[in-house]
Amino acid sequence: MFSLNVSGEKEVERKEISQAVISRLPRYYRYLGELRDDGVERISSQELSELMQSTASQIRQDLNHFGGFGQQGYGYNVEQLYTEIGKILGLDQIHHLVLIGAGNLGQALANYVNFERRGFLIEGIFDQNPALVGRQIRGIKVRPMEELESFIIEHHADIGVLTIPKTAAVAAADRLVRCGIKAIWNFAHVDLKVPPKVQVENVHLSDSLMKLSYNICNYAELHREQTDRAIDP
Amino acid sequence: MFSLNVSGEKEVERKEISQAVISRLPRYYRYLGELRDDGVERISSQELSELMQSTASQIRQDLNHFGGFGQQGYGYNVEQLYTEIGKILGLDQIHHLVLIGAGNLGQALANYVNFERRGFLIEGIFDQNPALVGRQIRGIKVRPMEELESFIIEHHADIGVLTIPKTAAVAAADRLVRCGIKAIWNFAHVDLKVPPKVQVENVHLSDSLMKLSYNICNYAELHREQTDRAIDP
Repeated sequence: MFSLNVSGEKEVERKEISQAVISRLPRYYRYLGELRDDGVERISSQELSELMQSTASQIRQDLNHFGGFGQQGYGYNVEQLYTEIGKILGLDQIHHLVLIGAGNLGQALANYVNFERRGFLIEGIFDQNPALVGRQIRGIKVRPMEELESFIIEHHADIGVLTIPKTAAVAAADRLVRCGIKAIWNFAHVDLKVPPKVQVENVHLSDSLMKLSYNICNYAELHREQTDRAIDP
Repeated sequence: MFSLNVSGEKEVERKEISQAVISRLPRYYRYLGELRDDGVERISSQELSELMQSTASQIRQDLNHFGGFGQQGYGYNVEQLYTEIGKILGLDQIHHLVLIGAGNLGQALANYVNFERRGFLIEGIFDQNPALVGRQIRGIKVRPMEELESFIIEHHADIGVLTIPKTAAVAAADRLVRCGIKAIWNFAHVDLKVPPKVQVENVHLSDSLMKLSYNICNYAELHREQTDRAIDP
């Protein structure tokens, strides 16, 4: 997991870390932030695992990927671990977002001030609908799609947010990629094909709802089976 | 994977299936739906894997959990597989939703007609804000929170959707659980503690954005390292 760099410092090789581990980091960050706000100074992996309904071993393994912040017999320093995970997540940097699609979902995201607190600034909002262009959402003007490229370059935008239907999303993603966007936060119900250097994070709401539907039906099914077995002679 | 039931039919034991597999089912469903709409009648696991940028072996493994729909040398019957996965996902059933929180995100979800096409009917919308109560969102009246319990029972609602801040979400979830809701689709940035019979699916938007941030920074880091190495003597 570690290597020594030329100055002899312990250096983390990030490339080996699976997306499953990365997916759990924001949750650690959230819990540690809450503990810090509650004035908790240190916590053991055991206590943290009980709070997070996880296992102490998974927590230790996950955090070891990044250098292992805990000390035997002391546990984790909450403030320090919170800050470090924030840095690992890149939250010590400012990200500049452009949002494409000023419909209901776009408006919901633009109005969500917590993103801003974490350093994700929505710089511009774009829509192809002339009825929406010129409106203000939380002080941010909705612009026509024609201005997208020049705006991205001028404002050094690094994240494009797609809150448009899937029929329009592929073309919009291509335009984002062509002007050098680093990442796309994709709410359109389509898988985007982009070069490897462009990071994509999908939020497919329908998929999430279908998974819920499966789990409802499956629980009912299992429960029915168990009841059947229980009344079997 | 299979067992024979009393009438001798092959029966799938669903309980062994991991959430990772379940998470991939909606994506199969989406691709098969598009193939069907394009008039494609059959497809091999190889062709499907190329389309989905997956591997043929994963596709075969995943679908085998549910009975294995493919035939050697023929591939999958698109229409049949689409219908079967729909059934597995419980999409042949109607779900009745109540949405708590008529803010921007709640409005965005209520306006999303595709959920309805899949059998997820938003029956009622609730909000504690008197300024929103009485308004209509796509023909659905926003009701005061006092009416929540009686409405759920009367309309046999099985899914509660939480689009409220995390400070209010825990109490709202408790109320949903007490009136026998089967599942919660949770957009609040908090982990809900509910009995095992209540299914929870979280959509933590901040977590998703943080993961994106990590991947941007990590890619830059790896790319920098590679550049460093390339210019090394």
